[in-house]
Amino acid sequence: MARVAYVNRRFLPLPAARVHIEDRGFQFADGVYEVIPVQEGRLIEEAGHMDRLGRSLHELRMPWPTTRRVMALVMRELVRRNRLREGIIYLQVTRGSSPRDFRFPPDPAPTLVITARSQVLGPQRLVEDGVGVITIPDIRWKRRDIKSVSLLPQVLGKQRAAEAGAYEAWMVDEDGFVTEGTSSNAWIVNREGVLVTRQANHMILRGVTRQAVLRLLAEEGRGLEERPFTVDEAYQAREAFLTSSSNYVMPVTRIDDRSVGNGKPGSLVLKLRDLYVAYATGRTS
Amino acid sequence: MARVAYVNRRFLPLPAARVHIEDRGFQFADGVYEVIPVQEGRLIEEAGHMDRLGRSLHELRMPWPTTRRVMALVMRELVRRNRLREGIIYLQVTRGSSPRDFRFPPDPAPTLVITARSQVLGPQRLVEDGVGVITIPDIRWKRRDIKSVSLLPQVLGKQRAAEAGAYEAWMVDEDGFVTEGTSSNAWIVNREGVLVTRQANHMILRGVTRQAVLRLLAEEGRGLEERPFTVDEAYQAREAFLTSSSNYVMPVTRIDDRSVGNGKPGSLVLKLRDLYVAYATGRTS
Repeated sequence: MARVAYVNRRFLPLPAARVHIEDRGFQFADGVYEVIPVQEGRLIEEAGHMDRLGRSLHELRMPWPTTRRVMALVMRELVRRNRLREGIIYLQVTRGSSPRDFRFPPDPAPTLVITARSQVLGPQRLVEDGVGVITIPDIRWKRRDIKSVSLLPQVLGKQRAAEAGAYEAWMVDEDGFVTEGTSSNAWIVNREGVLVTRQANHMILRGVTRQAVLRLLAEEGRGLEERPFTVDEAYQAREAFLTSSSNYVMPVTRIDDRSVGNGKPGSLVLKLRDLYVAYATGRTS
Repeated sequence: MARVAYVNRRFLPLPAARVHIEDRGFQFADGVYEVIPVQEGRLIEEAGHMDRLGRSLHELRMPWPTTRRVMALVMRELVRRNRLREGIIYLQVTRGSSPRDFRFPPDPAPTLVITARSQVLGPQRLVEDGVGVITIPDIRWKRRDIKSVSLLPQVLGKQRAAEAGAYEAWMVDEDGFVTEGTSSNAWIVNREGVLVTRQANHMILRGVTRQAVLRLLAEEGRGLEERPFTVDEAYQAREAFLTSSSNYVMPVTRIDDRSVGNGKPGSLVLKLRDLYVAYATGRTS
């Protein structure tokens, strides 16, 4: 059975799902997106993702393609039609198709594309050993808070990680501080036992999973410091991990071929992961 | 008559020209492009544009979608089918369509899109008064030498210029030096009469028209300094202008609402424009 996608008010077999070559998403990266995890057929953190979508659209002065209510219904219909139990909804909005001109079209008709895909979220098989990351220069533009499809630097970074046998690349700003991963937020428990993750401003994306973990930490009464940390501080950390919609909370046990702590996932990350999984699946495990 | 476009080995009416929603150009801005001017049905600086395309592809480790020879034939066929006398060829290559994953697909089948459009090049009506530019912070990524479709900052910049009643925005780096326009290179003749334009490294795009003008200058025995210049140096300049494939050489007579020189196009820019037009049209006017 071919997967079903949604493009501008139509449900279509994925292979037939197309956009015009003058779509501004294709010619200018003039678009934004969200990846919403689905667990047991249920969307996780839907409100958080749709709020962030709204913020991205607002920052780029891009109109909503339709109402949130319609988008909610379409996402549920895609879950149903694709018999999705565990996986992701991918949602992309662009400023639509119009004759190529850098300036905004006077009367934009936004493009809305939504797809659904089965995949294992936060793969348990990776958790036992944890994953490795490399560090690379952060060469991105200065508005990383907008979740745009202008993702070429992230593509190059993730490819570089893959070629180095790593799972993710942590990007490092000009002052030597880690910003975030190419598609995840970065966290450490430093040598002093302090949990550290970078504060969310224009320099990083405000991850929806990051926000959920911050809430879980608050509920647990666990303190943390929201501030930049250096690569050296990460090298010397007791624990490290990354968070993202499709990875949940994932232990990082190698940074640039150095072991983090004793080279095994730390106790805090495993605890946070359990808490998050319980939260995401709606079960108290 | 509908315009004719070319997409992956097929000539199609423009309205029917589409790419898959999982094209990496649409989802990741994982693509590059060229805009090649056409004058009297003849491609201008074709070799320069195709060389630069090759460089962009090489830097992104993206395969050629087909041979240069086939692309040359397709471009000519588009000129013919669209009865193009004066205008532009737009050519875009992406890493093709494949299930969404930041990493390069193991066996990429690049997408090739080529379109043709009639338009007036280097519009003479703008030359008499010259055009205005505004200055804005350069928030782009660090590999501006690659002509990628990751153009969202340029979109925002050009829109800001339009809303300010200006023709173009000159982007300014963190040290206060002009990098280039959102789709053009920036030049001044400073207070001392020295012609200045920024050297082409990773910080700007190596404009094909820029290179042609440098050659014309050399032939004329006119010296220049290839170095960054500040906004202040531009404010105090005797002349200013921009170069691009579709603008040729265009006088800039206002920068942030300040007049450049006496507010009229300067003598050097008009001379360079004449030289370039003669060169581009193959006529010694």
